[in-house]
Amino acid sequence: MLTKSTIKLVQSLQDKKHRREQSLFVAEGEKIVSEVLGSKIIVKTLFATPLWMQNNAQNVHKATECIVVDDKQMKQLSALPSPPGVLIVCHMAAAETPVAVQGLTLLLDTIQDPGNLGTIIRYADWYGITQIICSDACADVYSPKVIQSSMGSFSRVHVAYTALDAFIRQYSGIPVYGALLQGASIYHTKFSKDCMLLLGNEGSGISRNLLPLVTQAVSIPKRGDAESLNAAIAGAIICDAWARQFS
Amino acid sequence: MLTKSTIKLVQSLQDKKHRREQSLFVAEGEKIVSEVLGSKIIVKTLFATPLWMQNNAQNVHKATECIVVDDKQMKQLSALPSPPGVLIVCHMAAAETPVAVQGLTLLLDTIQDPGNLGTIIRYADWYGITQIICSDACADVYSPKVIQSSMGSFSRVHVAYTALDAFIRQYSGIPVYGALLQGASIYHTKFSKDCMLLLGNEGSGISRNLLPLVTQAVSIPKRGDAESLNAAIAGAIICDAWARQFS
Repeated sequence: MLTKSTIKLVQSLQDKKHRREQSLFVAEGEKIVSEVLGSKIIVKTLFATPLWMQNNAQNVHKATECIVVDDKQMKQLSALPSPPGVLIVCHMAAAETPVAVQGLTLLLDTIQDPGNLGTIIRYADWYGITQIICSDACADVYSPKVIQSSMGSFSRVHVAYTALDAFIRQYSGIPVYGALLQGASIYHTKFSKDCMLLLGNEGSGISRNLLPLVTQAVSIPKRGDAESLNAAIAGAIICDAWARQFS
Repeated sequence: MLTKSTIKLVQSLQDKKHRREQSLFVAEGEKIVSEVLGSKIIVKTLFATPLWMQNNAQNVHKATECIVVDDKQMKQLSALPSPPGVLIVCHMAAAETPVAVQGLTLLLDTIQDPGNLGTIIRYADWYGITQIICSDACADVYSPKVIQSSMGSFSRVHVAYTALDAFIRQYSGIPVYGALLQGASIYHTKFSKDCMLLLGNEGSGISRNLLPLVTQAVSIPKRGDAESLNAAIAGAIICDAWARQFS
């Protein structure tokens, strides 16, 4: 049965502080829930409408606890304008520890928009990029908007939070490509297979203290008039330029 | 002076119906306002804090009318969580009429997320793509989120709304590339300089009635596990693959 305190708990998980205190987060929507149920993430509670339960009977056992709710209750639990038929509360994994650089490792310097972070996680997963290192000022990977826009990829890509300068120094032999407006064209750059790609903040770009750690500035040739590209978009295009050379 | 009816008018422009009735839309934030003031868009009213006025005295004459507001009033006008120092109400341009295909023309089939549409307009502007044809079910180009995420590029790229099937048929000699999960690799596709690129809906892809009009399905080679890419991201990568061949 759905109690008031449960509703309050689920609602509180919209907030980073409460997520960290409880070590829990929320994911909602059919597609994401189905991906999470197939992953190693532990689902504490699954809330679903009778219709969802009926259509997904084979998946229900993967959650520790299941609660059937009606549309009105789902509306109370959901943070989406159109509440979906299913919502889960999941246990956070232990904080990811950065691992050695293999293939391309994305370094995110103060990517603050949760939609951008989620989108980046999704294309990282597309390109087989297994690790994203975030500065502590980046959006929280467990924020509902990140979970939503990553479309389930958050369950497959390692996202660790740490100081980027220390991380880069630890792997000092590995090239660090920095996405900058002034840099070598990605069309003519020979990328290293093992490398790091540093993406800067949406408004202010790469932090001043990280600029000297960039071993090669790269840029996307411009033909028109926009001053810049969205950080997530620029990152995707550079990841693609990298992947293209090893396809 | 800021009257209650003016506040009400500005707030009502959050809504598509009222925007169309009044033929007005809102843009806010220093960067976008400065781009709009330098464009051909006619600014009806500029609302700004005394500080903004002081720092931008040389630009004020470009608006038909200026109203100085305090922070509290700006909060009433603004739709942003952190109201900026300046907000403008602008006249819509006459509805764009599609023009002949030159270079790459983007065709958007039911791109519903305003953030995606704004992002697409921004990278179109980056790549010198001058025309975007939207199906009528796409997000409204004048919605505040589109304006915000296009970062001023909406003032340079022609965005027209029309039935895509009729538009494609009108230019039947021009290749139509369709972004599909099963298609020729963009790494090995020889793009035509004059072409159309059709992007499908975020959830359901390209509409069934448009699929037969695609002359070449193209796809972005996948190395990892994500099921798909965000529609705006996929479009950016394909636009880049096209631009690369003519750089």
